[in-house]
Amino acid sequence: MTRAQLFDRIRTKRSFLCVGLDPDVRKIPAGLSIFEFNRAIVDATAPYAVAFKPNLAFYEAHGAEGVAQFEQTCRYIRAQYPEIMIIADAKRGDIGNTSEMYARAFFDTDLADAATLAPYMGRDTVDPFLKYENKWAVILALTSNPSADDFETLKLAGGDPLWREVLRKAATWGCEPHGQFKSPTNEDRVMFVVGATRAETLQQVRETVPDHFLLVPGVGAQGGSLEDVARHGMNPQCGLLVNSSRAIIYADTTGRFAEAAAAEAAKVAAEMSELLHKYL
Amino acid sequence: MTRAQLFDRIRTKRSFLCVGLDPDVRKIPAGLSIFEFNRAIVDATAPYAVAFKPNLAFYEAHGAEGVAQFEQTCRYIRAQYPEIMIIADAKRGDIGNTSEMYARAFFDTDLADAATLAPYMGRDTVDPFLKYENKWAVILALTSNPSADDFETLKLAGGDPLWREVLRKAATWGCEPHGQFKSPTNEDRVMFVVGATRAETLQQVRETVPDHFLLVPGVGAQGGSLEDVARHGMNPQCGLLVNSSRAIIYADTTGRFAEAAAAEAAKVAAEMSELLHKYL
Repeated sequence: MTRAQLFDRIRTKRSFLCVGLDPDVRKIPAGLSIFEFNRAIVDATAPYAVAFKPNLAFYEAHGAEGVAQFEQTCRYIRAQYPEIMIIADAKRGDIGNTSEMYARAFFDTDLADAATLAPYMGRDTVDPFLKYENKWAVILALTSNPSADDFETLKLAGGDPLWREVLRKAATWGCEPHGQFKSPTNEDRVMFVVGATRAETLQQVRETVPDHFLLVPGVGAQGGSLEDVARHGMNPQCGLLVNSSRAIIYADTTGRFAEAAAAEAAKVAAEMSELLHKYL
Repeated sequence: MTRAQLFDRIRTKRSFLCVGLDPDVRKIPAGLSIFEFNRAIVDATAPYAVAFKPNLAFYEAHGAEGVAQFEQTCRYIRAQYPEIMIIADAKRGDIGNTSEMYARAFFDTDLADAATLAPYMGRDTVDPFLKYENKWAVILALTSNPSADDFETLKLAGGDPLWREVLRKAATWGCEPHGQFKSPTNEDRVMFVVGATRAETLQQVRETVPDHFLLVPGVGAQGGSLEDVARHGMNPQCGLLVNSSRAIIYADTTGRFAEAAAAEAAKVAAEMSELLHKYL
């Protein structure tokens, strides 16, 4: 999926909602497989979402059988909702031939349009993912968990926090004359995970990467104000995918979970529609 | 596996070799499944190894079927060589309930004794792995890939490189009065990936974490001198696992690959035996 296509779908649906598919078997109604739960959630929320984000850990916890249900979920979304982006939330981070294998796992098969990656080992982690046309590397920059302060926000000798150096460096990858691509640009292949919802931080992010899409997980169960994210994070191509997982998929944990998920997604999308009108 | 058991096996086998199981189907003899290739490598090299390290990417590249072969490999090692540590080289790094799911994937099932983790998101990534008795979190600190300089070696405002702050902080996790454990200590649950083989760097690592085990991947196909690693990295409990993947498992890519792997592993183990005699 290209950046233009993504923006086009955001405008058409009047939504920049990403629905996280984190199927926790302790919370899904008895008798449903992971895939059956996901299928119901996907059907219920597809009208309001521009992306689905299966979180690999919730599938891998069930071994090969769980991974098969991840694959089945992706194939179902592809078949029924080909216009919706699939982000494999895997937070992989390895190098060279290993990273190439991870890229294959998600992209050769066309299971996903994007994969989340950890930047610690540097560019070697990301390069193999940048070789795929119309696919995305979604790089962790600043997350919203309590221990983000352990390393992400540490001040570097130059004065900037680590997360800002990650943005700055990663925004140049693949863009030199000898990189994998000159056109499309880095902004067409790279997104950043930015969990911050504070105005000041979002402004700093936008100073550093004005044109990139940001995947923002800090709304919903993790708190955070959608209004603040839109006001300080939106750019002329929207530039935002805001994820909500638990607040939508576990809005109700009885047999009425799908209707409740649809209602919750519709509510968020309605707010997003207003924000697109207000800030775009 | 406890630290005492690990050290005991190192002394018994006179080896601190970890054999990396990175089965690349482009390199393994035609007609063999990943599991069949692994089984032959495991049988051939078990006399010389104290650990096996399957690299998850090479299995996940084949989807659910590949993950099933990872599981089969682990179960085979458990059944035939229960004294050998299994390190799931997954470099996972997520938070809270997601990280808990990854820990389950490897430890609830007892597929592995240890899992490699990325530190970027901080302690939240590692905590769920520290709750398992006799299991290990193997945290990336300083790797040997070219782009390790992108972030790992950046100087912090205090003057130390990021990798050293990772060592320093992670060495305290789980050890406060309210942590998951007071005894065993952090050294019994945490190892670090240190790819450096330069004397000066290894000395800095040992100043910071004198008692921890280090997993050193920089020997073999990636270069690096075993003698230097032992001289500067060994501690009174050995404190080293040195990994070799490609140099052993692809020593020969014909039908004689297992014999060639055994010969290569035997050669490395013989050198390790001398180094244990010299430096321990």
